[in-house]
Amino acid sequence: MKSVQIFIYLFLLSLGSYAQDTMNTSQNFAIAIHGGAGTILKENFTEEKEKAYQNKLSEAINVAYEILEKGGSSIDAVEAAIKIMEDSPLFNAGKGAVFTNSGTNEMDASMMEGKTLNAGAVSGVRTIKNPISAARLVMEKSEHVMLSGKGADEFAKKNGLEIVDSSYFYDEKRYEHLQKIKESEKMQLDHDSDQGNNEQNKDYKYGTVGAVALDKNGNITAATSTGGMTNKKYGRIGDSPIIGAGTYANNNTCGVSCTGHGEYFIRKVVAYDVSALMEYKSMSLKEASDFVIHKKMKEFGGDGGLIAIDKDGNIAMPFNTSGMFRAYKKANGESLVKMFKD
Amino acid sequence: MKSVQIFIYLFLLSLGSYAQDTMNTSQNFAIAIHGGAGTILKENFTEEKEKAYQNKLSEAINVAYEILEKGGSSIDAVEAAIKIMEDSPLFNAGKGAVFTNSGTNEMDASMMEGKTLNAGAVSGVRTIKNPISAARLVMEKSEHVMLSGKGADEFAKKNGLEIVDSSYFYDEKRYEHLQKIKESEKMQLDHDSDQGNNEQNKDYKYGTVGAVALDKNGNITAATSTGGMTNKKYGRIGDSPIIGAGTYANNNTCGVSCTGHGEYFIRKVVAYDVSALMEYKSMSLKEASDFVIHKKMKEFGGDGGLIAIDKDGNIAMPFNTSGMFRAYKKANGESLVKMFKD
Repeated sequence: MKSVQIFIYLFLLSLGSYAQDTMNTSQNFAIAIHGGAGTILKENFTEEKEKAYQNKLSEAINVAYEILEKGGSSIDAVEAAIKIMEDSPLFNAGKGAVFTNSGTNEMDASMMEGKTLNAGAVSGVRTIKNPISAARLVMEKSEHVMLSGKGADEFAKKNGLEIVDSSYFYDEKRYEHLQKIKESEKMQLDHDSDQGNNEQNKDYKYGTVGAVALDKNGNITAATSTGGMTNKKYGRIGDSPIIGAGTYANNNTCGVSCTGHGEYFIRKVVAYDVSALMEYKSMSLKEASDFVIHKKMKEFGGDGGLIAIDKDGNIAMPFNTSGMFRAYKKANGESLVKMFKD
Repeated sequence: MKSVQIFIYLFLLSLGSYAQDTMNTSQNFAIAIHGGAGTILKENFTEEKEKAYQNKLSEAINVAYEILEKGGSSIDAVEAAIKIMEDSPLFNAGKGAVFTNSGTNEMDASMMEGKTLNAGAVSGVRTIKNPISAARLVMEKSEHVMLSGKGADEFAKKNGLEIVDSSYFYDEKRYEHLQKIKESEKMQLDHDSDQGNNEQNKDYKYGTVGAVALDKNGNITAATSTGGMTNKKYGRIGDSPIIGAGTYANNNTCGVSCTGHGEYFIRKVVAYDVSALMEYKSMSLKEASDFVIHKKMKEFGGDGGLIAIDKDGNIAMPFNTSGMFRAYKKANGESLVKMFKD
């Protein structure tokens, strides 16, 4: 009789430990991505082009979702999703990066992990095929958070990342667009300052890609990658590689990736602000991100949007522009792929 | 009789308007500066050297104080204070900037104004005599917030800032120090990553200068300037040029300039965090900045400190290292110049 009691006791103990295990690896995972916010209106898209964007967004979330479903890390998931968008000429990142004033492509990217608050970023890189992988490399293999210019390219090369000739980033349409903008800015270029806000250029500030994921271990990672602004000068750095502005992640609150008029996002420390509002004001993810994008940024004149996932797998994707390329997929099967307002 | 009444009425009205005016230009101005935090112990300083630091800090606050006293702007005040420290070889900024691994001097600086949330920053500049003036230039004359590398140097030159030969930044002692560090890191350099934290190098992350001022119009400006880390590689960018991390200002809360192990300050978005704690948690300046430096950063392993002024002219200067070069002067005559803990 006694051995039966011991057996039952041990059986219950093991049941408890099993339950504990499954609690630690929650099934509550999720992936959210964006491909930039801006004047994205249905009338400006052919059916074919719309389909192309939707397919690429779907591909990116599905690849990331599969990684998360198999128990992979949120770091792997966001990197995989962003690489797919970087490798596509549809988005202003990696392969599709826009041109600087001097006809080069200078890319920025960043990544942050919510568990350790580890972060990595590169700015002004020119030869790294996937800048997001360089951001991850800096996060994981460097004691630094941010590397820039040739030094960042060199660090990536030394550590075995795929390096490409600058011609890889050449895109006929993007180059033509640079010429058009330069044409219209000629007068402005004669001035000493780079002040002024060219309307034609306005939308070409947008097109950044980003991803945020929550994995089964409850770890949130956020990442952002961009080619910056068409015709950018003087080594301009936007919000994408700035931890706190374009990217932020903290397992206690949320992960955030932003897209929009970078200067405004830097000045408002947008990505961290969403987290701070949750932590300090007990706002929900939706309340915090809506407040930042629809109230604070709207009043400030900062066009753009963000994607965010909180520790419970809730997703928010507010934007104050006419559209934002965006998609998400949750563990419960719920998913969305959209570009316009509705 | 009636005209006398009208006269009295008008006289009282004008008195009221005068009072209003003097309220708008409050007498509650203040300047605070730092010259870096780190292992700053009395036993490591000769009397002469201690005096040299104290004199330079005094000179910087007095010049800024005079500007504020005469009704000048907080922008002018912080720029003037920082230029004095940049022009001195005592601090790791401008003239005294430390050397990178490749034997160059690459400097970062930023400035933010609390009224408009305008901000400007430069990173990796090599030929600008006063990087803080370049940060101000970007803030006032560019539509961008952050310019980097050669582009930033070019922008400064185009706009008439004083450009110097790179030999201007040569300092025998700083160069010898680079050689020593390189020697001790030889083994590490053979590796592909730049991981590892050399103890000898540890203190040479610190030495950044910064200033925060509140002017008679209630406008707060914060600014930071640095040569970065001795032996830095791969275009490393620290927290000093990052708005939200090293520098932040908002007239509704406070202005902050940080100094310390930059990577930790970036990951904790330190400068903005002080402001967020005041805005969202209703903490006082002292509570918020003590909490960030002595609690959050201490637990996180982030060595350093910050200086901050709130909208009422209160000053906080917490640091979790053994010392911090620091000074302040308030409208009521109260002032302080210190480097060690007590």
